Amino acid sequence: MRVAVEPSLQADDYPFSHRIRVRFAETDAMAVVHHGRYFPYLEAARVEYLRHLGHPYTEWREAGIDAAVLEVFAQYRQALRFDDVVDVHVRLAVVTRATFQMAYLLTRDGDAVATGVTVHGAVTADGRPTRLPRWLVEMGAS
Amino acid sequence: MRVAVEPSLQADDYPFSHRIRVRFAETDAMAVVHHGRYFPYLEAARVEYLRHLGHPYTEWREAGIDAAVLEVFAQYRQALRFDDVVDVHVRLAVVTRATFQMAYLLTRDGDAVATGVTVHGAVTADGRPTRLPRWLVEMGAS
Amino acid sequence: MRVAVEPSLQADDYPFSHRIRVRFAETDAMAVVHHGRYFPYLEAARVEYLRHLGHPYTEWREAGIDAAVLEVFAQYRQALRFDDVVDVHVRLAVVTRATFQMAYLLTRDGDAVATGVTVHGAVTADGRPTRLPRWLVEMGAS
Amino acid sequence: MRVAVEPSLQADDYPFSHRIRVRFAETDAMAVVHHGRYFPYLEAARVEYLRHLGHPYTEWREAGIDAAVLEVFAQYRQALRFDDVVDVHVRLAVVTRATFQMAYLLTRDGDAVATGVTVHGAVTADGRPTRLPRWLVEMGAS
Repeated sequence: MRVAVEPSLQADDYPFSHRIRVRFAETDAMAVVHHGRYFPYLEAARVEYLRHLGHPYTEWREAGIDAAVLEVFAQYRQALRFDDVVDVHVRLAVVTRATFQMAYLLTRDGDAVATGVTVHGAVTADGRPTRLPRWLVEMGAS
Repeated sequence: MRVAVEPSLQADDYPFSHRIRVRFAETDAMAVVHHGRYFPYLEAARVEYLRHLGHPYTEWREAGIDAAVLEVFAQYRQALRFDDVVDVHVRLAVVTRATFQMAYLLTRDGDAVATGVTVHGAVTADGRPTRLPRWLVEMGAS
Repeated sequence: MRVAVEPSLQADDYPFSHRIRVRFAETDAMAVVHHGRYFPYLEAARVEYLRHLGHPYTEWREAGIDAAVLEVFAQYRQALRFDDVVDVHVRLAVVTRATFQMAYLLTRDGDAVATGVTVHGAVTADGRPTRLPRWLVEMGAS
Repeated sequence: MRVAVEPSLQADDYPFSHRIRVRFAETDAMAVVHHGRYFPYLEAARVEYLRHLGHPYTEWREAGIDAAVLEVFAQYRQALRFDDVVDVHVRLAVVTRATFQMAYLLTRDGDAVATGVTVHGAVTADGRPTRLPRWLVEMGAS
């Protein structure tokens, strides 16, 4: 397992957050958001964070690089329900030469409802591993 | 609206069917399969029907043709629930020079639970309209 | 088929719109939004429109009423891609004693990319048909 | 993090497997199965395994117990593509008084493509923690 972060439960520890509202289609028969549907939330927050950093994901894709997902982890602390407003806090947590890890905290009205980690590697359009963008390596070193 | 079929409620009117079992992840907070999640069921049945006809969808894609979805219609008669076993009956209903329509009937224990229609056009890999495969035109003419 | 509306391609014909951004998770291997994933977009717009009207969907559910989906229709005119910003315009199109129809227009940079219709009936928590809320009947009559 | 299993890469280490075929709707614009959509696969295998054990998940739900998902982990080793046939191997890996962990191995043509772990706790219909079913505790002890 490469996951090497225990995401903080303090929103202050995250430099960026993205707000989403739970769609009815994202709930399941337990009337809560299905556990697999948190990953599109994390992804949406990651996309917005990269845009905020001036390196939108579309730029990556135009450069022929994809940030393949190597591992994911999520911990569910409180259920999310239809129409809930959720803040997905995100930070760059770990950067190695070939991979990086993002940590996430989901809050509702300020309360921690879930955490997550995604581990990524840069790959070319045909799926071979390649170097991380320089700005990302530098950001991880700072 | 191009949809020009009223799907039959008789399973006998369909030459092929594909059985699926409802996954928990496909239900919503009303404890039924979300209406948008019927379309992957129709698609799965369409894919299996094309394979059965000897023209698997992967063959289309290797030939640089995609069957773009132009329109869809669905009618929900009875709710589907977690773990239900559903037979998705499918037939080729209409073929014109540039488009074809598939009709669907979903049954559970022989009872009609939903019907659907999908309208498709052949497009090249970069999205421009192209001719339908000859076998499909001939099948529509028979 | 109950669908009885041909949705207008003019955004001005709709009293309300809801903006969404396409998530990566909503695309498919044709690099476009999968046709079945437009329905959560329509649903999200419907939910926001009802909230805007002062009758949020959560109020319906607390009153023991659900707006079951009886039929859906969608027409795809241009593909939606990752990160596209989409305005989902919505209007109440038809109201009968037991059902109502919503019409939708999706635009990107002002261009029509898709239209849709959803047909709903009011049902109780255990799925039996019931009367539409009075405000909705009155709104349909005006 | 409660995840306490490193799933084996040997199919022989798993007592049960469930075969699925990748649907087109499950792919994303990288032409691979989206990382979040592996969790419905794991869930489907879990559901079939419980049925195989004589304790179908519907029985749990009728008894007013749900197996809430507390944590998930997945590692992606090779991409899955449209129409791939995947065997989802599953085993009960850890049982404590209040939680249990399932481990998963996904193979394609016998090759390991992904692994996963899900951590569950028994909850009542209104979401409060409750005891695990006795058979599950006994199975974990054997």
